[in-house]
Amino acid sequence: MPLRVVPLGGVGEIGLNSMLFDDGESALLIDAGLMFPDDTMLGVDYVVPDFGVLRETASRLKGLLLTHGHEDHIGAVSFLLKEFDVPVHGTPLTLGLLRHRLEEFGLDGAARLVPIGRSGRFRIGSFDIEPFPVCHSIPDGVGYILRCGEGVFVHTGDFKIDPRPPDGVPTAIPRLARLASEEPVTALFSDSTNVEKEGHSLPEGFVEEALSEIFAEAKGRVIVAMFSSNIHRIQGVLSAASRHGRRVALCGKSMVRNVATALELGCMALPRPDILLPVEEAETPAGRGIAVLTTGSQGEPRSALTLMALGEHKHVRVREGDTVVLSSKFIPGNERAIASVINHLYLAGAEVLHEKISEVHVSGHASREELQLMIDTVRPKYFIPVHGDPRFLYRHRNLAVERGVPHPEVALNGDILEFSGGELSRPGKLAVGRFFVDGKGVADVESFVLKDRYQLSQVGIVMVVLALSSTTGEILYGPDVMTRGVVTENGSEASVEEAREIVLKTWEESGVESRKDLAEIQTEIRKALRRYFNKRLERKPVILPVVMEL
Amino acid sequence: MPLRVVPLGGVGEIGLNSMLFDDGESALLIDAGLMFPDDTMLGVDYVVPDFGVLRETASRLKGLLLTHGHEDHIGAVSFLLKEFDVPVHGTPLTLGLLRHRLEEFGLDGAARLVPIGRSGRFRIGSFDIEPFPVCHSIPDGVGYILRCGEGVFVHTGDFKIDPRPPDGVPTAIPRLARLASEEPVTALFSDSTNVEKEGHSLPEGFVEEALSEIFAEAKGRVIVAMFSSNIHRIQGVLSAASRHGRRVALCGKSMVRNVATALELGCMALPRPDILLPVEEAETPAGRGIAVLTTGSQGEPRSALTLMALGEHKHVRVREGDTVVLSSKFIPGNERAIASVINHLYLAGAEVLHEKISEVHVSGHASREELQLMIDTVRPKYFIPVHGDPRFLYRHRNLAVERGVPHPEVALNGDILEFSGGELSRPGKLAVGRFFVDGKGVADVESFVLKDRYQLSQVGIVMVVLALSSTTGEILYGPDVMTRGVVTENGSEASVEEAREIVLKTWEESGVESRKDLAEIQTEIRKALRRYFNKRLERKPVILPVVMEL
Repeated sequence: MPLRVVPLGGVGEIGLNSMLFDDGESALLIDAGLMFPDDTMLGVDYVVPDFGVLRETASRLKGLLLTHGHEDHIGAVSFLLKEFDVPVHGTPLTLGLLRHRLEEFGLDGAARLVPIGRSGRFRIGSFDIEPFPVCHSIPDGVGYILRCGEGVFVHTGDFKIDPRPPDGVPTAIPRLARLASEEPVTALFSDSTNVEKEGHSLPEGFVEEALSEIFAEAKGRVIVAMFSSNIHRIQGVLSAASRHGRRVALCGKSMVRNVATALELGCMALPRPDILLPVEEAETPAGRGIAVLTTGSQGEPRSALTLMALGEHKHVRVREGDTVVLSSKFIPGNERAIASVINHLYLAGAEVLHEKISEVHVSGHASREELQLMIDTVRPKYFIPVHGDPRFLYRHRNLAVERGVPHPEVALNGDILEFSGGELSRPGKLAVGRFFVDGKGVADVESFVLKDRYQLSQVGIVMVVLALSSTTGEILYGPDVMTRGVVTENGSEASVEEAREIVLKTWEESGVESRKDLAEIQTEIRKALRRYFNKRLERKPVILPVVMEL
Repeated sequence: MPLRVVPLGGVGEIGLNSMLFDDGESALLIDAGLMFPDDTMLGVDYVVPDFGVLRETASRLKGLLLTHGHEDHIGAVSFLLKEFDVPVHGTPLTLGLLRHRLEEFGLDGAARLVPIGRSGRFRIGSFDIEPFPVCHSIPDGVGYILRCGEGVFVHTGDFKIDPRPPDGVPTAIPRLARLASEEPVTALFSDSTNVEKEGHSLPEGFVEEALSEIFAEAKGRVIVAMFSSNIHRIQGVLSAASRHGRRVALCGKSMVRNVATALELGCMALPRPDILLPVEEAETPAGRGIAVLTTGSQGEPRSALTLMALGEHKHVRVREGDTVVLSSKFIPGNERAIASVINHLYLAGAEVLHEKISEVHVSGHASREELQLMIDTVRPKYFIPVHGDPRFLYRHRNLAVERGVPHPEVALNGDILEFSGGELSRPGKLAVGRFFVDGKGVADVESFVLKDRYQLSQVGIVMVVLALSSTTGEILYGPDVMTRGVVTENGSEASVEEAREIVLKTWEESGVESRKDLAEIQTEIRKALRRYFNKRLERKPVILPVVMEL
């Protein structure tokens, strides 16, 4: 049987990472991530792969391998486990963070979580699995070497090549170099996120130095906002604060929880026992001795940082003399929210530093030189870029062409990559789908719902209620015209009144026969009102006529 | 009488630029711009200042001075002229572009457009006005020196300091230096857009060189997308294309129109008479001799570039071997649309170059070193940063502090700056407002409409229709439950059915008395359904019950 590799998500998009390896005897998944909605997905909380596509494979699905603990790699595990009871393999921190999510879904008791190391080999079914350490913006990350009858496959997960990693464990370039010289690699699947960035991503240690300088120089408090999963950076903040005589208050639920988990697992250590300051004490005038570490770096509306900026946070209010550092990326789609929180911080009297004007953030993903080094090290026969929009995949493919990889291939979600006798064929596509999760996550938001929401959001809705006599066709009630989200609401009773008259006229002009035909008169009313609003507003609201017979 | 200066818009935000100068005898406006909506302004086309605030000043309002022809400086002129018949002063290209907009509003005949030069002095009422040339991403831009009884005031408009401007006219730094030495400047109002950018913005000529290289090396067609008002860059594309034996097809209505206007006014010249290629001929296989110049650089859904990428453009389809250049800024808020068009271009087989990966765009705004040079040259007593979000204004103010300006001030929209005897006081705020224009621009979108649209967009609407007998309170019709944009539509008739039962139950439990009280039963139904959907979906759709009595 050949080996089939199929991306279920994350290839041709950002997030939703999940890839199937299936050799006909055993099947494995690498990662089960979610995607955050873009602005066309109105009211959607997040997106997960439709794992229903695995039903055919279910009997041989032997495990899920996690690369690291970010939502776009573990956020859909609960949805996978609801359908398939497979063991989940991951490093201790990855499983620790996963456990938080599973608890929210009441799944933590049932899940079979199998801790693994960052190196060593183990078997699952017909696969031999060897994790290898990678550096990323979260500790305890790995990539995987998978061996099976069809060869050796390397999946990098998310990675960068940090020459001086905070935990002392570098990305396993030497191991991969030895692998390539001993066992030729059939295919490399490599992280494309930063392929548009020239050069080499800066080491994480760089941020600690920058923050250290800020802690030394700032005359007041320093408030650092960042992702709560970036445990190395949290460690860096604590160390730098400690060196400059600042105690650190933690703000934000996930910040407090993740620090506790990391301390428990030994992924973090306090530089001195009293470094943490109860958040209630962060409001003292002694700003110079204080740092605050908070969530909210993306300008989320109810986040701790936004509340601090608006003066609505329970414990910390931003004031004249504070320095606020956004130690994080401006994630595309969030720029306006981030800009807004920065504006409010300035209006509250703070000085603000962020990645656009100061070197207070470094990326966790490999830039072009590192991607090149990965390709040159692994020297695969086939190269398949993963993680990213099509434009990233194509550029990464082009880089592999430049580096002399024999067969670089762009695959998108669902594309079947079939390896047999060391050769790749592409027999077609698996119909991979996705669910838009909204609210409790029990229901799927279908595309027509999103289309309705879009129309409602842009122009609003006009409703008409009209009751007719079933015997004479005469009007017993109405027509009532109501609107929501339509500009005519704007005190201009006139246009609602005009709309009523149009409905009346439509009813009058319809013959007695068709008056009895409710569907027909509803269609006529809809048409007439559409014409009216299109002419008056150059807009097409949703029009919903309810004509009843009594 | 003191001089009052009041920003009506554009100070504390991007766009909507308009500033009032009023010395009690005469009043002038500098610019009347629009703002493009952000993603909270659902369905809004654009935003304009509420010029109603000028009614008190109307009798002495003697003119509008335009700095340049961008929408955020001229886009609200038609709204101003509808209320106030004032002469509009601007350079020839600025007035040429304004005329296009006025035609759309049927106002071109009535408007009094007064062409001015880029230097020289003239009077309007009690003001002595001296425009001075500035470089920007559109030709024919000016700033203004205003002299009145209260002193000398300098407004830069949008500017950069280009050492080798394409039209040979540099920003008037020498003139401003002479001014500062002869007549001390009371206040400087300066463009803050790029205050977060270190160093010096690159000269426009840089882009022509980069494009020239691309035209030389690309084996197929080169498609350049950019703003159609950037006449100098269009000239650069034509010159570079001409040098490398490419003819240029123009795509996009505004591109064709603006090129015609610029040629007519002598702001542009064709490098050779046959350089323009009819767009119908751009699809020939001879890609090497062809360039296409198009609109759509912001990924606008129906723009020429998007249609080309999707294979839906009438004349040009992107194909294998094409090189596409986005010679423009990724404007905040448009990143996802731009990313999407780039993805489609790659999927269609093109190579894509844009500002993030290649030097194919330079900014039209001054970076920090240029801003500093402006401050150092003008040496004003008071400094008021304009054009930009609060964070830009505060950073620009801080720069002025560093440069030793005696009195830097952050003012926001509506703040009254009163100059009297060479001293500034700030007596308060003018209630400046704005209109959200939607559709035909006849109506104002009020904030509750936007609130409704937001709720509709996120969760949808549930409507209930129920007819009761006015004598017995019994149900004559319904309850009908309909939804739009609610996830329960998703085939789950169940939840609509459950909602019906809840309405029935609410009716049953209401006593006979209150059955007759339509308002009360409507409220009860709304409450019961809100509870139900909140529990079932963790969501609060708009709920609209219509209970009628017959």
